[in-house]
Amino acid sequence: KYDELDTIIIGVVGGDGIGPAITNQAQRILAYLLSDEVNKGKVTFKVIDGLTIENRAEAGKAIPDDVLEELKACHVILKGPTTTPRKGDQWPNIESANVAMRKELDLFANVRPVKVPEQGIDWTFFRENTEGAYVLGSQGMNIDDDIAIDFKVITTGGAERIARAAFEFAKNNGKKKVTVVTKANVVKTTDGKFLEVCKAVGEEYEGIEVDDWYIDIMTAKLVDEKRRTGFEVMVLPNLYGDILTDEAAEFQGGVGTAGSANIGKQYAMFEAIHGSAPRMVDEGRDIYADPSSIIRAGGMLLNHIGYGKKADQLFKALEICAAEKKYVLTGRDTGATSEEYANYLMKTIEKL
Amino acid sequence: KYDELDTIIIGVVGGDGIGPAITNQAQRILAYLLSDEVNKGKVTFKVIDGLTIENRAEAGKAIPDDVLEELKACHVILKGPTTTPRKGDQWPNIESANVAMRKELDLFANVRPVKVPEQGIDWTFFRENTEGAYVLGSQGMNIDDDIAIDFKVITTGGAERIARAAFEFAKNNGKKKVTVVTKANVVKTTDGKFLEVCKAVGEEYEGIEVDDWYIDIMTAKLVDEKRRTGFEVMVLPNLYGDILTDEAAEFQGGVGTAGSANIGKQYAMFEAIHGSAPRMVDEGRDIYADPSSIIRAGGMLLNHIGYGKKADQLFKALEICAAEKKYVLTGRDTGATSEEYANYLMKTIEKL
Ligand SMILES: CC(C)[C@H](C(=O)O)[C@@H](O)C(=O)O
Ligand SMILES: CC(C)[C@H](C(=O)O)[C@@H](O)C(=O)O
Repeated sequence: KYDELDTIIIGVVGGDGIGPAITNQAQRILAYLLSDEVNKGKVTFKVIDGLTIENRAEAGKAIPDDVLEELKACHVILKGPTTTPRKGDQWPNIESANVAMRKELDLFANVRPVKVPEQGIDWTFFRENTEGAYVLGSQGMNIDDDIAIDFKVITTGGAERIARAAFEFAKNNGKKKVTVVTKANVVKTTDGKFLEVCKAVGEEYEGIEVDDWYIDIMTAKLVDEKRRTGFEVMVLPNLYGDILTDEAAEFQGGVGTAGSANIGKQYAMFEAIHGSAPRMVDEGRDIYADPSSIIRAGGMLLNHIGYGKKADQLFKALEICAAEKKYVLTGRDTGATSEEYANYLMKTIEKL
Repeated sequence: KYDELDTIIIGVVGGDGIGPAITNQAQRILAYLLSDEVNKGKVTFKVIDGLTIENRAEAGKAIPDDVLEELKACHVILKGPTTTPRKGDQWPNIESANVAMRKELDLFANVRPVKVPEQGIDWTFFRENTEGAYVLGSQGMNIDDDIAIDFKVITTGGAERIARAAFEFAKNNGKKKVTVVTKANVVKTTDGKFLEVCKAVGEEYEGIEVDDWYIDIMTAKLVDEKRRTGFEVMVLPNLYGDILTDEAAEFQGGVGTAGSANIGKQYAMFEAIHGSAPRMVDEGRDIYADPSSIIRAGGMLLNHIGYGKKADQLFKALEICAAEKKYVLTGRDTGATSEEYANYLMKTIEKL
């Protein structure tokens, strides 16, 4: 699909807090790896810097209209963390920009790989990304001062497309099992539907086992070295996906090191899964922010648009730097800045 | 409160699957520890065996009326696991018996301690136990064949009483921090209210810090030996409590070893936090089921009704047996039956 385009437009969204600083480093790395393509005009970067909490607050919208237009003019997007306001904050009650972007661009599949080869962990999570507990955003209801309600919605179509994405991935990657994670024993109507649809889709895939567990038991299983083996592909409603992938990322070094792919029919967005760390900015430590998660997201982007070899180079170099430790920043100062880390990473790629 | 009663009535509910077998062993242990009190008529046991999935299915109710009446005639209850039907099961779409009992007896505080002294873990979870995602049970809505909705409800009163329970516990046990866990950045109306109420209650408790984190980040933090220190008391809406306590229990040996206290103003119920393991029964392995979780729940019951010393004896003996390993069953066969384990436990208590 992307090789048919004259020019692939990569949108680069800095976001809030440490976002612009680390996203800038990720763009440098991508530009370095894609320098020939950029020179030939096959790839171009488009920096979109209007997705800040200030602009969003002023527009009273999770994504201001002009920013949304700019986003829609891109083919793929690399996105830094954005601050999510919540009740009691200084910001108005607007929805998370992540969540809004996933919905506006219909990025229904949140794909998060977690790999720890030495522990036999090779998981791919397919988190439904547009509905569930996230569907109505901030539009819950206050019946009166004392009764608050939120809604969770699962549609047949919504469950079906994420289930299909998971089973297709399993089929194309030689996986033997897809595990559906819900709380269908309690949240019966929506999770019951999700589970039912996943099982029905699974029946179309011969040779792939469909397994199911409750989210409470899954969070426990992942901690247990014995019981966590045997999982391959997991498919989950939105909020359980949010929870379980954060836990899972911990085994490979924390959310700071994990990237996340948000894939739809038309668009795709790649992001760091950590937050915007406003405290680091307040304390002037943002130049030390760890850019490895957003750089990893950049690698996933490369892979997605058809530059698998360059993506592999990048992942390899990230691994080498991680093993060498001295340049791995973990949000705590280690003496190296984000820029120094990116420089070192480029040198490492050069030497491959 | 309990010492004023002529006779403390302990209801013993076997439940489903492995439930009756392990609950029976727990009752033996309690009867052994309380033999004087039983002889004097201060304590009496009342076995309630009607809370089976077959009876519930026939009544079309999570708790048949006659069983509920029997339950309400007790002061405290020791409860084995009950099978929860779900969509697609052979059973009708009735609510979980646990969930129904928590609501019917208004057991609003689910208190789950997790202790791993050698790792510096000493957590007490206060899970709100009657509302949140559990409030309406199976009464979600199918708008049409393709759109399913479930509701989450948080009330000011509901949030306030669990917050108060957590802060009172903190105050009475020299704890310095209470951590509120929500997803208030997305599930804004209900979790926003929960967080707000907890913070307001916290202001009444001088010297106790109120801290808050999102559930996705918390599941990750608990895995990280460095970042999980410093937590003491946690207070959470129902479903997050369900998830996080299962994960946390893993660090002390799994849900099979953890007990759970469900406390209300009038009643209190103590249960194992694992399931009814129907597969073990099918395979004739139920006599090997691990009774340590329900026995631990029995210890919590003893403590609650004012027999703290006997509870300590029991916990001590459980620890010794766990350290000795040979009699620790983990749901996998180890050669010892539940009954043999209980016998050994009594011998261990005798030797203390
Ligand atoms: C920031 C937040 C709204 C977001 C989510 O809950 O989806 C984040 O946790 C994630 O996983 O991308
Ligand atoms: C069995 C199930 C309904 C129950 C719950 O979700 O509360 C269980 O997981 C628990 O934690 O006691």
